[in-house]
Amino acid sequence: MKAFEFHNPTHIVFGNGCIDEIGEKSGLSGKRILLVYGQNSIKRNGVYDRIIKSLTAAGITEIVEYPGVRPNPVLSHLKAGIELAKTEKVEAIVAVGGGSVIDEAKGIAAGALYDGDIWGLYNGSFAPEKALPLVAVLTIPATGSEMNGGAVITNDETREKFGAFAAVLYPKVSFMDPEITHSLPADYTAYGAVDAISHLIEGYFTGEDAWSPIQDRYVEGLVKTIMEATDRILANLEDNDARATLMWAATLAWNGLAPSGVGAMAFPNHMIEHPLSGRYNVAHGAGLSIVIPAWMRFAVEKNPAKFAQFAANVFGIEASNEKEQALNGVDALKAWFQKIGSPVSLAESNIPAEDIPQIADDALHLGKAWGMTDYSKEDVVRILTSCASVK
Amino acid sequence: MKAFEFHNPTHIVFGNGCIDEIGEKSGLSGKRILLVYGQNSIKRNGVYDRIIKSLTAAGITEIVEYPGVRPNPVLSHLKAGIELAKTEKVEAIVAVGGGSVIDEAKGIAAGALYDGDIWGLYNGSFAPEKALPLVAVLTIPATGSEMNGGAVITNDETREKFGAFAAVLYPKVSFMDPEITHSLPADYTAYGAVDAISHLIEGYFTGEDAWSPIQDRYVEGLVKTIMEATDRILANLEDNDARATLMWAATLAWNGLAPSGVGAMAFPNHMIEHPLSGRYNVAHGAGLSIVIPAWMRFAVEKNPAKFAQFAANVFGIEASNEKEQALNGVDALKAWFQKIGSPVSLAESNIPAEDIPQIADDALHLGKAWGMTDYSKEDVVRILTSCASVK
Repeated sequence: MKAFEFHNPTHIVFGNGCIDEIGEKSGLSGKRILLVYGQNSIKRNGVYDRIIKSLTAAGITEIVEYPGVRPNPVLSHLKAGIELAKTEKVEAIVAVGGGSVIDEAKGIAAGALYDGDIWGLYNGSFAPEKALPLVAVLTIPATGSEMNGGAVITNDETREKFGAFAAVLYPKVSFMDPEITHSLPADYTAYGAVDAISHLIEGYFTGEDAWSPIQDRYVEGLVKTIMEATDRILANLEDNDARATLMWAATLAWNGLAPSGVGAMAFPNHMIEHPLSGRYNVAHGAGLSIVIPAWMRFAVEKNPAKFAQFAANVFGIEASNEKEQALNGVDALKAWFQKIGSPVSLAESNIPAEDIPQIADDALHLGKAWGMTDYSKEDVVRILTSCASVK
Repeated sequence: MKAFEFHNPTHIVFGNGCIDEIGEKSGLSGKRILLVYGQNSIKRNGVYDRIIKSLTAAGITEIVEYPGVRPNPVLSHLKAGIELAKTEKVEAIVAVGGGSVIDEAKGIAAGALYDGDIWGLYNGSFAPEKALPLVAVLTIPATGSEMNGGAVITNDETREKFGAFAAVLYPKVSFMDPEITHSLPADYTAYGAVDAISHLIEGYFTGEDAWSPIQDRYVEGLVKTIMEATDRILANLEDNDARATLMWAATLAWNGLAPSGVGAMAFPNHMIEHPLSGRYNVAHGAGLSIVIPAWMRFAVEKNPAKFAQFAANVFGIEASNEKEQALNGVDALKAWFQKIGSPVSLAESNIPAEDIPQIADDALHLGKAWGMTDYSKEDVVRILTSCASVK
């Protein structure tokens, strides 16, 4: 095992009905808050009313609203949120939504106490040492943002989709209520599952430690669990046990534990995917299900043993030949993505094959900061070409 | 999955040589500290000198020493430590040792800011809301105390071994340096492995949730990993990869993740074991390897399916009959305890069979507070009688 540091101070409150405790358990009593959310779904399903009621009952009555966060949140909306937070002198942020909302809220939390250009948080020129306290209510299991210090934003001028990470960005408290995810439709449930799996496999396949049974079993176990829970949910959207399991598994997939001890790792799937969701506004999980099988097939050449292990331990695939076993595992994962309705080709998401060279340039530009330095443009073009259309 | 809250704020610094960073990374600069440790092993293996050097280099020069913590730490020594902390007006605690040292240091941390009788922390009459900051350096992987809010103490007058838990007792930072565990002898390595396994299986077998694949796979994976790492270490005490793996696995075994979501659980193995280590001063892990197979054999009757699952997923045991599969799993674990040199009978630890009724009374007294309310004295006597001597 390699050296690491782990420090995840987020307080998780998990269970059906827990959103009704947000007033009491958020630690925000007496504070003036900015309530950040997305579109109108939380008003339709009653979550908005319940949160306002709980906050109000706890004496949190100064609530400035900031709705309108988009999937793949954009820099212009983030900047306007920072201005509002400053003008209204809010003292804390409550984010209600999926990873997009929580990510943008993190940018607002840091930006509210910073006078420079918040884009610096994403291009690496600004490392925040303070931020407003952030409380999250998760509505879409997917990104893990509810229990990590990461945040992603898309620059709507340049279409760059960049990520940030800082210790001050961890939510103080995150409320995870599986029951409110019953209304999440099948497609976004599936995209969330793909996203969670993507977080688990990046370090699993790219970490430098040869013998890492703690991390390997953690990843293999969670991937299997995410697949089982998703299958159950797609058969019955109101299967609460499965909703709860997917929700907590997606958090555990990207809260820092999986990569702790695997050494230096890279994020090739995320680097290749970000230009897809950044430029074409496909759901991040949908972009990932396109990229992952293509990347895996490429990467099997370098490390067939680890991919064979994945095939064996996740799918129970046996084969006399290690490479064959590895590739059968890739096919099994791809088939599962198709089964749950997540795309596996650029064509399905209307991304033109002629854009591949430009997407590759974007991925390599982004990858410079995220450990994808050993890929040539030809490598990335080859990966993207192999998933241009369904084969 | 059942409702839960999870909040583990301990900052982990892990890796060979990390103890040399304690001055810089402990956050104790300028503070007057109490240095708590056990016997002389940290002086023999150089750990003491390296810690003093690192602390001093970081300007932490006011160091009050408090050595002499015993395995199965006792209340009288804890109370003297609290007096010393108060008299010397220390502002923080640095604990260097295994679970005994870290546990006693937690009691001192809470007691230094409390004017009542510290026994109240253990009998449930005192719930601390503040404590001195605690930094830990772990030397024995076993109890998980380096990343949890628990602490156990033995009342040397009554021989009661009681446990406490409080949010303020989590270490602020814990340094985990696998290299310094190379000198840990085979027997205490084995007892530590048993202890870690015991923490994993209590919630696994007694939790109330029927479908808990996240937690089940987490537990099964860590048990297998602990066994593999221990086998490697006992073949070569300086196998650093295996030392590191055992160290982190033992932390993950009892940092709150395993039981999160399994619902109400009980601690029958710990309740029955505590009188053994409390009264007869056997190592806690040694006491556990005596109790666990006997308890499992008893508990198979109530829930054969879960024990059969354990047998299948940890040991790869198949059988046509669920109960047979379950019992074969118990036998396999017991055989492994014997293989690593941990006792499986009271006789091996010179605990007289005629004391069994008294031990059972003690266990039930302790168990009232820890969820073992559905056991009769006859049950506990039956369990203890079945492990009186090796069969």
